[in-house]
Amino acid sequence: MIVKAQTYTFGHTSDDALPLRCGRKLGPVSIAYETWGTLNPEASNAILVCHALTGSAHAAGKYEESDKKPGWWDDMIGPGKAFDTDRFFIVCSNVLGSCYGSTGPASINPATGKAYAMSFPVITVADMVNAQVRLADFLGVKKWLSVVGGSLGGMQALQWAVAHPERVHSCMPIATTARLSPQAIGWDWVGREAILSDPKFLGGEYSKEAPPERGLAVARMLAHITYLSDASMNEKFGRRLQQMSDVNYSFDLNYQVESYLNHQGLSFVGRYDANAYLYITRATDYFDLASEGGGELSAALAKSRCAFGIISFSSDWLFTPAQSEELVAALLRLKREVFHCDIQSDYGHDAFLLEVETLGSLVRGFLSNQERSFRHG
Amino acid sequence: MIVKAQTYTFGHTSDDALPLRCGRKLGPVSIAYETWGTLNPEASNAILVCHALTGSAHAAGKYEESDKKPGWWDDMIGPGKAFDTDRFFIVCSNVLGSCYGSTGPASINPATGKAYAMSFPVITVADMVNAQVRLADFLGVKKWLSVVGGSLGGMQALQWAVAHPERVHSCMPIATTARLSPQAIGWDWVGREAILSDPKFLGGEYSKEAPPERGLAVARMLAHITYLSDASMNEKFGRRLQQMSDVNYSFDLNYQVESYLNHQGLSFVGRYDANAYLYITRATDYFDLASEGGGELSAALAKSRCAFGIISFSSDWLFTPAQSEELVAALLRLKREVFHCDIQSDYGHDAFLLEVETLGSLVRGFLSNQERSFRHG
Repeated sequence: MIVKAQTYTFGHTSDDALPLRCGRKLGPVSIAYETWGTLNPEASNAILVCHALTGSAHAAGKYEESDKKPGWWDDMIGPGKAFDTDRFFIVCSNVLGSCYGSTGPASINPATGKAYAMSFPVITVADMVNAQVRLADFLGVKKWLSVVGGSLGGMQALQWAVAHPERVHSCMPIATTARLSPQAIGWDWVGREAILSDPKFLGGEYSKEAPPERGLAVARMLAHITYLSDASMNEKFGRRLQQMSDVNYSFDLNYQVESYLNHQGLSFVGRYDANAYLYITRATDYFDLASEGGGELSAALAKSRCAFGIISFSSDWLFTPAQSEELVAALLRLKREVFHCDIQSDYGHDAFLLEVETLGSLVRGFLSNQERSFRHG
Repeated sequence: MIVKAQTYTFGHTSDDALPLRCGRKLGPVSIAYETWGTLNPEASNAILVCHALTGSAHAAGKYEESDKKPGWWDDMIGPGKAFDTDRFFIVCSNVLGSCYGSTGPASINPATGKAYAMSFPVITVADMVNAQVRLADFLGVKKWLSVVGGSLGGMQALQWAVAHPERVHSCMPIATTARLSPQAIGWDWVGREAILSDPKFLGGEYSKEAPPERGLAVARMLAHITYLSDASMNEKFGRRLQQMSDVNYSFDLNYQVESYLNHQGLSFVGRYDANAYLYITRATDYFDLASEGGGELSAALAKSRCAFGIISFSSDWLFTPAQSEELVAALLRLKREVFHCDIQSDYGHDAFLLEVETLGSLVRGFLSNQERSFRHG
């Protein structure tokens, strides 16, 4: 499946610029996006897939046949797959603040001719979604058949449901939460401190050729542990050593788990922008769905009109099954249509990218059901 | 209770030096220690208390009445307390490799006249215990009534039990494990990477006045999160903000949990040596009790002759209750005397320092029982 990277830009004038939660306005704003399948004449088959922390709009397919790897959810999106591109029009856009084509701290600020860096406004999940609203208008999608996403993507799905209820027929928040726990805020804090402490960070004014690579690698390695589970790490690595018969009494790589984390850190540095990491993690800290209801989660959820398919993973200790259950319980009290499944999995938070068979079946069933009840608002 | 900081030094000659697991010999070796109570004429009332990762020999009492704080387990050690100094002779020594008086990377290498820094040998828990054996000889303690400790202290207690079975009547490993999980090895790796990445680290040759403070603070903040539990963080901080009515759209301290971690990081930098942190965390990575039995935990434990009192805490996710239960099950199969309790607590790994009432009662009961059965080997 060949897909084209596209970009929609808006906000060239002050009137058209994007108002942000921090009080500033941002413009122009480019949103990188990709689409799969065809929007039907009634525009009733559009699904928005929202990506996670460091993801991109490249959710499925390849740009060229010779690409080594397809998009990040290619197992889920395609002809005959759970997100069946023969039936649905799938859209995935890169979040505001990222470094994969949408406007973010690495973008050029037209007012200065230089990259925004730390002068980029601190953005929120609400801002990301408001930018997606503009993209939906451009694409002619008045109402999504479904807004779906895992992790930060699930936060976007929840935000769509309560802030733009008339535009969402159904919503699938996967491996996510209505708000980060203090522990998760703590991990983000420590990761950002590692980046901010790197002398190559230079207040965010580093060059592309000399990024704060060690700080960014530390942040990524730390975060990566929170994406796995104790069980999956035991299975995958145990206490196995690298190619050596005994520990070598040094601080070098001894254990396979060290080598794995090291590799994760290094490869992340090659693909992600440090400033973007700061901004996007901060957006997740700040996300609190209850704030859409004056501090009450149930008041926020009461604004929604859509059906919910809420999926958690049993070994996810970053965004726990209990956090999903809190959403389910609140929605049931509000008499909303709720489908909920806690998928038994040892893969931890990363399970939303790995448990494609079970997840795919649930998504397929949920969408098939929602397709029948879709009505234009 | 006034206590005196003492030091025992050995290994001035090559014959007397301490052979280490890495193959090197270390000498001279100083071991900082403190004692409370009086060794009875039969030397049958001696208890060794082993400290955790960044602890010291100063487990109880004050050096002077005007000291602001007593030792780290003062609630547990003293006249009439669980470790009753009216009955027992309590010893606590600073581990080899630390920076609180015992020989470690910050000590002067007599061969060069400069601090060892990274030329210090990579040490193990077995080495720490072998240094304590020399201290026991010096103190005239042939056999401990009990060897007790939490976390890394518990690893030392386990090591004593299997490597020096004739010298241990009973053993209380608290909040500990026979080996670190790959997740715990991963946290240590990331923490050390933060230190090693700090340009002020200078290959370990930093001056006392200019330590790699930011790297060390990141390592400490990360580790500190693993000492708490999700529940205790929710209770203690929730998502509460600092003195401010709303988030301030910045990367500064917004949440109370951020401020708390920041404080923990900064205060640690003032009290601990970065090289020592590298060495002691590495010793915990390398600890695997099974290696004392050719790779079989049960073979290692079969060498022990003592009674065991094994205590875990329900919310400890660093060294889990399941890890303690594995020890208990193996010991029961070996028909060893085992007392085991999983204390219900929300305090996570730190519970061994905080749940002093419950823990104290259990320790009191265990010691009272062991006192009756003590026989000289």
